Amino acid sequence: MNYRMIFYVLGSVMKVEGLLMLLPLCTGLFYGEPVLKTFGLTMAILLALGFLLTWKRPARQSFYAKEGFLVVALGWVVLSFFGALPFWWSGEFGRFADCFFEAVSGFTTTGATVLTDVEAISRGLLMWRSFTHWVGGMGVLVFLLAILPMAGQYSIYLMRAESPGPSVGKLVPRLRETASILYRIYMVMTAVLIILLMLLGLSPFDSLIHAFGTAGTGGFSNYAASVAHFGSPAVEWLIGVAMLLFGVNFSLFYLVCAGQLAQALKSEELRWYLLIVFGSVALVVANVHQQFLGARETLRAAFFQVSSIITTTGFSTVDFNLWPQFSKNLLLLLMFVGACAGSTAGGIKVSRLILMVKSVAQSIKALLHPRAVTLVKMDGKVAEFEVLAGVFAYIVCYILILCSSVLLISLEPITLEESLSAVMTSMGNVGPGLGRFGPAGSFASLGSPAKYLLSLDMLFGRLEIFPMLVLLLSWRRRQ
Amino acid sequence: MNYRMIFYVLGSVMKVEGLLMLLPLCTGLFYGEPVLKTFGLTMAILLALGFLLTWKRPARQSFYAKEGFLVVALGWVVLSFFGALPFWWSGEFGRFADCFFEAVSGFTTTGATVLTDVEAISRGLLMWRSFTHWVGGMGVLVFLLAILPMAGQYSIYLMRAESPGPSVGKLVPRLRETASILYRIYMVMTAVLIILLMLLGLSPFDSLIHAFGTAGTGGFSNYAASVAHFGSPAVEWLIGVAMLLFGVNFSLFYLVCAGQLAQALKSEELRWYLLIVFGSVALVVANVHQQFLGARETLRAAFFQVSSIITTTGFSTVDFNLWPQFSKNLLLLLMFVGACAGSTAGGIKVSRLILMVKSVAQSIKALLHPRAVTLVKMDGKVAEFEVLAGVFAYIVCYILILCSSVLLISLEPITLEESLSAVMTSMGNVGPGLGRFGPAGSFASLGSPAKYLLSLDMLFGRLEIFPMLVLLLSWRRRQ
Repeated sequence: MNYRMIFYVLGSVMKVEGLLMLLPLCTGLFYGEPVLKTFGLTMAILLALGFLLTWKRPARQSFYAKEGFLVVALGWVVLSFFGALPFWWSGEFGRFADCFFEAVSGFTTTGATVLTDVEAISRGLLMWRSFTHWVGGMGVLVFLLAILPMAGQYSIYLMRAESPGPSVGKLVPRLRETASILYRIYMVMTAVLIILLMLLGLSPFDSLIHAFGTAGTGGFSNYAASVAHFGSPAVEWLIGVAMLLFGVNFSLFYLVCAGQLAQALKSEELRWYLLIVFGSVALVVANVHQQFLGARETLRAAFFQVSSIITTTGFSTVDFNLWPQFSKNLLLLLMFVGACAGSTAGGIKVSRLILMVKSVAQSIKALLHPRAVTLVKMDGKVAEFEVLAGVFAYIVCYILILCSSVLLISLEPITLEESLSAVMTSMGNVGPGLGRFGPAGSFASLGSPAKYLLSLDMLFGRLEIFPMLVLLLSWRRRQ
Repeated sequence: MNYRMIFYVLGSVMKVEGLLMLLPLCTGLFYGEPVLKTFGLTMAILLALGFLLTWKRPARQSFYAKEGFLVVALGWVVLSFFGALPFWWSGEFGRFADCFFEAVSGFTTTGATVLTDVEAISRGLLMWRSFTHWVGGMGVLVFLLAILPMAGQYSIYLMRAESPGPSVGKLVPRLRETASILYRIYMVMTAVLIILLMLLGLSPFDSLIHAFGTAGTGGFSNYAASVAHFGSPAVEWLIGVAMLLFGVNFSLFYLVCAGQLAQALKSEELRWYLLIVFGSVALVVANVHQQFLGARETLRAAFFQVSSIITTTGFSTVDFNLWPQFSKNLLLLLMFVGACAGSTAGGIKVSRLILMVKSVAQSIKALLHPRAVTLVKMDGKVAEFEVLAGVFAYIVCYILILCSSVLLISLEPITLEESLSAVMTSMGNVGPGLGRFGPAGSFASLGSPAKYLLSLDMLFGRLEIFPMLVLLLSWRRRQ
């Protein structure tokens, strides 16, 4: 284990986080809020520690899968811990468990909140809260890869550990270039969204907050009513469509930029993703149409909510907690599904679902025709055995963690619907759950252990289980 | 596809079912109930059809995996359909959907009921209802294998399709001998249980009913209060321990009979099974101890309920629906787990769980050390790739069917806890669920489509998914 290299990467993460806090610091200064203790102090600590840890470049830079997992998991814990400090020192968020929950919820792009009155919070803190969505969406280590001159050999392990999906595809031969292309696409799409929101009449502050929440598929809003606050169908349609786009594999956008639109549209994952979205919208419309006045309102609400949940964003325009049970259960299933691999969305990802179903179909065929040789293919390419084994290991771990968490959290006085939806929304990085955790509620009423448990679930979900598992297991082994 | 052979086996199944109805017929006659229309007519139809279909032995007896799955699935549908006729013709069970549900629930050893006043039902029908548990527990096709002189080559496919667990082990080289040994162990254990129950003061009728329910891990009782009716701690302990025993792989009992007790106790599945049982009892005791008066009552209730649920029997001595949420969720998880492969219990089986966890651990190792070669072992033997692939296919199908069923059944006006527990209890062949489906409730309030859906889930659970899947898929293809 190359500890010096691990500390070096962690130091770089701290430096980046320190610099990222410039945005909320400036926001706070702009609105005349006290920022010295909250952002000022945290930035000072982060930069000091960061420079200390990166003072000397380690001589041996070799780095393997295990270190990759470990440093990514540690990096996210460090990010969340320091990200929670401004909330903590502001005194506006209650106990440290609440601050940590909110920071993890931000970075993992979950968007579940412990705030009961979000509109009373300082602007700087709100900006930081939403900015963590944007940073966490594409990943901090990927960002490091894009900006830092790191030796190439080990960086693939970092990217693999942080990027969502069953396998990582390099867009171009050089990894640093790939990371940089991804971040550039992300920035341009976010900038376009900010401009469109401002054109629709939102203030620059509101536009930034909601663009960060949409781009990172996070879902924090600065209004209790979320996107419904604006009362504008145009804004709802724009954000609904934008969420759907940020749930698409970014490598497809790269193909489009490279003039290969036809190739991009052939993606099996994209087709299934759109099929699931529009199928679910149709089912929800059929199920809830009695609750709305007109067909247009029903369609808009159904589309927005399906898009928000499957992309694991978590914005809301209506309180779907009041919908019939069928629609609520459908949304719960979509939390499990998530959007495409290589996007900013959470969940198990559509491509994993496709691989899973295809390989099960192949197993059944093998059962019936023991001598026939069949292969699992995706986009015309044969899926490697290691990828399939990884998908199954992921699914099984997901379910085991889900079940244990539901069991543990039911020590709180909550219903099964509440415990199940709280864990599913955390692991899927969605945000709202059902019952008291619905879009109109919050996670404030839970005890601190339950908040730490859900924070852990969010990290498990965002980093796709294995990095956190390696961290927990190696901790156990060292004791 | 060898259709003539399929019809021949189905005919044999009908003949066996016709003969099995002698027991409830005699019970009805003994208590002076009208049995001519209910059992008399059904028996006549079954025997007539049965002899017609088996009139001529097919010349070509070859038989492959696909036919094996198909005939087992069809056999169980036929069994359930004709098993429902006595209920239907008696007029005591309401609509046909209710009768079919009750028959499927009986044969699949689920024990979920649509009856709201079980104590008003005729004795003959109650005996039939419980006898189906005993018959379904070990399997009807396995019974056929044990008694009929069938060519050996294809019978392994029948046994594989009907026997629970990831792989079928022959105890002795000849399959017919294996089936016969299994049935003999089953009969002796049931007979001992009947005698012990009578020694504890139960009437012969009550003893038979509860021994059938215990041996088949079914759970139908002729009292609304289930086993609590007797108010006898001794009976509760006896049935509690007996359920646990019928949840053990029967091949271990064969080892014990062969004088290899030490070998039997080494079984990994047995050890994990007992560990899960006693761990769960400890957790439930810690969680519910405030609801009971003394430590002895708490321990007895916790042990009985854990044993009843993990063996997927479903008897009850208390209304666990009133327990704290943690214990209810733990029971829900145990419904998913089930007992050992090769027993009469349902659920996904402990051995599948062990294989799953071990192969996930191996995948993670492979992820961290790409060059190391590791194998999944169980009881010292390497698990074959086909077995592991089958386990994963099974788990994935289980979850997909579970999710779709929960979604569909939520069209009924029931809570998520109720829909989830109804589907889990059906697929796990347990019996009671939570909420209105709890031990004190029934499934009577559901609509007919929901009852057929749950019946399908019970068949999926009992036959371990693939036979039913093959039946549904081949039906689709022929249309």
